[in-house]
Amino acid sequence: MRQVELNTHISGRFNIELENLRNSVMAMGGEVEQQLVDTLKAISTNNQGLAEAVVLNDLKINSMEIQIDEECLRIIAKRHPTASDLRLIMTISKAIADIERMGDEIERIAKLVTRNKLPASASIKSSMLQIGQQVTAMMRGTFDAFARQDEDAALSVYEQDNRIDSEYKKLLNYTTLEMTRTHDDMEDWLDILWALRSLERIGDRCKNICEYIVSLSRGRDVRHIPLENLQQKLDALS
Amino acid sequence: MRQVELNTHISGRFNIELENLRNSVMAMGGEVEQQLVDTLKAISTNNQGLAEAVVLNDLKINSMEIQIDEECLRIIAKRHPTASDLRLIMTISKAIADIERMGDEIERIAKLVTRNKLPASASIKSSMLQIGQQVTAMMRGTFDAFARQDEDAALSVYEQDNRIDSEYKKLLNYTTLEMTRTHDDMEDWLDILWALRSLERIGDRCKNICEYIVSLSRGRDVRHIPLENLQQKLDALS
Repeated sequence: MRQVELNTHISGRFNIELENLRNSVMAMGGEVEQQLVDTLKAISTNNQGLAEAVVLNDLKINSMEIQIDEECLRIIAKRHPTASDLRLIMTISKAIADIERMGDEIERIAKLVTRNKLPASASIKSSMLQIGQQVTAMMRGTFDAFARQDEDAALSVYEQDNRIDSEYKKLLNYTTLEMTRTHDDMEDWLDILWALRSLERIGDRCKNICEYIVSLSRGRDVRHIPLENLQQKLDALS
Repeated sequence: MRQVELNTHISGRFNIELENLRNSVMAMGGEVEQQLVDTLKAISTNNQGLAEAVVLNDLKINSMEIQIDEECLRIIAKRHPTASDLRLIMTISKAIADIERMGDEIERIAKLVTRNKLPASASIKSSMLQIGQQVTAMMRGTFDAFARQDEDAALSVYEQDNRIDSEYKKLLNYTTLEMTRTHDDMEDWLDILWALRSLERIGDRCKNICEYIVSLSRGRDVRHIPLENLQQKLDALS
């Protein structure tokens, strides 16, 4: 009886620790999401001060990653988690690296705003902000799917990246045409391209995390399987 | 006595497993390094067949990542490693994500070669290949430092990235001037820029791994501390 109580007690504390870990990831994700929202607002209103705040705040995100990683190590060392819990913790450690790098991409965009490098034409600005909104939605969807460990939600978010990629390519083509037409201030044009590329990369990072969620749920690694084959391959394996 | 023998046996097997894990990472690193060497050769000799082989071979690297990750999970679950061994395994799991993404960047460059997109002018081609050689050397240095868990070597490799960044910026400026001068085939120019950017990103990934090596050696996380402050901060903490 005592053993059972002890085990329940240990397992209860372990569950709390896992829950806290998950909450820390969500807090980190929320922070990065806010960074993107602020950066888009800074672009939209040409607010260099807000962009500077985003750049400074990236330090906080970096330190969140380190803290969560240390917590992952501590829990594994102390609790010797079994297969699925261990997989969850290892996945968290990988996912936060992606979240931190999303933060880096956002910081890159914000830095351009602080140097008054964005935007160029009104139409490019507006299209860029539109892609930014889609990426924000994708990010939110990713973190929601993570919080609920919801495989279907993760697969549906994963698909959003195709739409973002297609919008990105359209805008890239348009921007390239404008560059050719004006062939002035090439450096400024490049800054716009880098910013677009960063937005697209954030979408890719979301996709990575969605793959982690599906892998966790299926108990097998589905990374590097293209979406068009993913459902099919998973069904074949089931 | 029997207990001691058993422990030695277990610890001996554990050491072999760790050694195998390390060897797998080195093999994966060697594979990615060869991919870069082949891609540079494909650019230099305009060999589209070789570039296609690089693109196909990326699948092998992806599957190496998944296998090593599974092995990390298996070892932790089975052996309950203590602090420093656990930190090593968790670090390996993070490092291989960086190695795999280096492979993705190389694949991006190789894809451009398969579409006959590179190079443009002879001088840009030559400078790009030169940066490619520097990145290859940095990659080799990174994996060597990892194999020997050599902090000093990792710090010295880390510094190489500053030189690569500066070469990259110079070439970027030159390329931008050429773009402005010719303002033709803007898409082809962009492909060159993307390839340059990919090379520069591979350098960043090497830097990440060097940070992991230093963190392992110091037993504390040194990520996100800029190099100019790193030695100083570490000295202050010692």
